[in-house]
Amino acid sequence: MIILGIDPGFRYSGYGVLKKDNRKALLLDHGCLSLPATKTLSERIGIFYSFFVSKVTQWSVTDIALETPFLGKNAQNFLKLGYLRGNIYLIASQQSLFIHEFAPREVKQAVTGWGGADKKQIARVVLQLFPGIEKPKREDVTDALAVTITALWRTKSNF
Amino acid sequence: MIILGIDPGFRYSGYGVLKKDNRKALLLDHGCLSLPATKTLSERIGIFYSFFVSKVTQWSVTDIALETPFLGKNAQNFLKLGYLRGNIYLIASQQSLFIHEFAPREVKQAVTGWGGADKKQIARVVLQLFPGIEKPKREDVTDALAVTITALWRTKSNF
Repeated sequence: MIILGIDPGFRYSGYGVLKKDNRKALLLDHGCLSLPATKTLSERIGIFYSFFVSKVTQWSVTDIALETPFLGKNAQNFLKLGYLRGNIYLIASQQSLFIHEFAPREVKQAVTGWGGADKKQIARVVLQLFPGIEKPKREDVTDALAVTITALWRTKSNF
Repeated sequence: MIILGIDPGFRYSGYGVLKKDNRKALLLDHGCLSLPATKTLSERIGIFYSFFVSKVTQWSVTDIALETPFLGKNAQNFLKLGYLRGNIYLIASQQSLFIHEFAPREVKQAVTGWGGADKKQIARVVLQLFPGIEKPKREDVTDALAVTITALWRTKSNF
């Protein structure tokens, strides 16, 4: 079981790749994809798709982990988030990957033990779990790793 | 200029393919893709993507026409519509197609001359324009043809 967790966004998309290693989670990859604002929407979607197809292939990913989005103040941003999520679903379909989805509260609960935790608390726990990694500059990365860990921990039969 | 117009939906996706032929619009193809409810969301997105990739290839499509969606009562349906639109944007990126987007009011205005027209009025005009086609069972098809025609008429320099 090799899980790719993604926190998609048109500016920054954090991601993490975790592998089950006996009873531990082995961090294979993590980072943040930045989409150039100078490109058209369509071109940025093309870059997003190709980037994550290559990550799936590179790490022989079997599962994808996502956080369920909620409608915020900006309906158009919500729709555009759908564009990126639609591409993740397409990759899952094309590569026969299983998708795990968790509400933000479930991720916070699983990682910190408290469903009302904020991004900084999430980041602190994630960095404690993987002390070898440098503190990522962006919380998008720790958010993506949080949902990846949640998927690993929640599917206990496979872990 | 060969335009593929799509009215995407998880139940039915109407589509039409129009080619400029001197000063007339030649109807190359039209129909309605139905996604099986028994498949997973991810599988349905995979079917949607493959279907429209094949249409683009089959007709050497150069442009895509879409109607701008607005947030209705159901935010989750709006997000899911984003999944399908994200796949259309990906196809446009991969095949270097130009995307035309119009507000529903612009389409109604262009086709019927009145921005407040309803689906039945749209359907009547579309069927008058293409008398050779049988009356499609679903208004998704006439809606898709309406946005396709709008794209053809609005880009006068190419028409």
